[in-house]
Amino acid sequence: MSPPRLSVGALVFPEFEPLDLYGPLEIYAVLGDRFDIRIVAETDAPVAARGGPRTAVDDTFADGHAYDVLLVPGGMGTRREVDNAALLDWLRAAAAKARLVTSVCTGAALLARAGLLDGRPATTNKMAWKWATTQGPGVDWRPKARWVEDGDIFTSAGVSAGIDMTLAVVARLTDVETAEAAARASEYDWHRDPDWDPFAEMAGLV
Amino acid sequence: MSPPRLSVGALVFPEFEPLDLYGPLEIYAVLGDRFDIRIVAETDAPVAARGGPRTAVDDTFADGHAYDVLLVPGGMGTRREVDNAALLDWLRAAAAKARLVTSVCTGAALLARAGLLDGRPATTNKMAWKWATTQGPGVDWRPKARWVEDGDIFTSAGVSAGIDMTLAVVARLTDVETAEAAARASEYDWHRDPDWDPFAEMAGLV
Repeated sequence: MSPPRLSVGALVFPEFEPLDLYGPLEIYAVLGDRFDIRIVAETDAPVAARGGPRTAVDDTFADGHAYDVLLVPGGMGTRREVDNAALLDWLRAAAAKARLVTSVCTGAALLARAGLLDGRPATTNKMAWKWATTQGPGVDWRPKARWVEDGDIFTSAGVSAGIDMTLAVVARLTDVETAEAAARASEYDWHRDPDWDPFAEMAGLV
Repeated sequence: MSPPRLSVGALVFPEFEPLDLYGPLEIYAVLGDRFDIRIVAETDAPVAARGGPRTAVDDTFADGHAYDVLLVPGGMGTRREVDNAALLDWLRAAAAKARLVTSVCTGAALLARAGLLDGRPATTNKMAWKWATTQGPGVDWRPKARWVEDGDIFTSAGVSAGIDMTLAVVARLTDVETAEAAARASEYDWHRDPDWDPFAEMAGLV
């Protein structure tokens, strides 16, 4: 008998960064026998990512569903959403019910503003470092990291770093062979070292 | 005065591979002052990718719009779409009006069945090589290639290869510095060599 599928609650908001969301979702989609993807937003209207493409919504905050894994993307929209009490309330409630909370890029600023990262190590986008880290003065921000794993929270660096992080999430929730198979199926060159981060230097952070 | 934006017509169909589409769209979205993204489908209902997430549609085939760049993703849905006359007719008509035609993964099977690749070099997904190449017996299929550029047609290998190809497309349509800036903005480790392809060997093709 196969193990039950794990649900992935993937948050969207206006001007989310498309690859922050769809990089991780590709990995979960390849492993569709293990993971069940749900798109979550404040309302049920389709949500436009940066550049315009719109994603349809499966669940709203008001539905109050529990998810095994939360996926929180970043993007320019986070500048507005850090002040959205409805989103931060949902995030706190959903995090309390989740096995793992994950963020990509400036999605970490949303986790920080929800109080989920206080006193914990985390990382975020290197090109938006100053703004994002200001959202969490009590966070132990790590400038040189592709992703940071700290107990039940994974935070990744910018955009494509979310794919590397998600493969590590899959390795933790299933096994490393399953993660390797997903990387191969998507012909993705997995950066398996969480300390690999040439972008920190490019951004002048180290 | 800025140059006019180039339109990107991005095809979707049921069970397209999410990263085939959204990897390239991330690059075009980062360069939103240069590229304008339009999602194109047979009808105007949202279209579910592999794994379930649905993308809303901007234009339908019947609109008959011209696009500067066509983006054709792959995925399991191509098994059905290679026999969809409405899709192949649209593809031929749109290709005739486009500056560049690009495919990711088994999207090349759709180009092949539309007759756009006859006598030309092209590549496709390495894990679905046998099926995809059977769709175009007159195509000069290249097993070891991250992507193949042949005049006005770019074809890429599987899934994440579309990002590397799109950066090469951007370098051709704008300049290499713009492509490099887009890769850095998305913290993407660009494989700039079109012959880099460890997946061909993993699949036993070379």
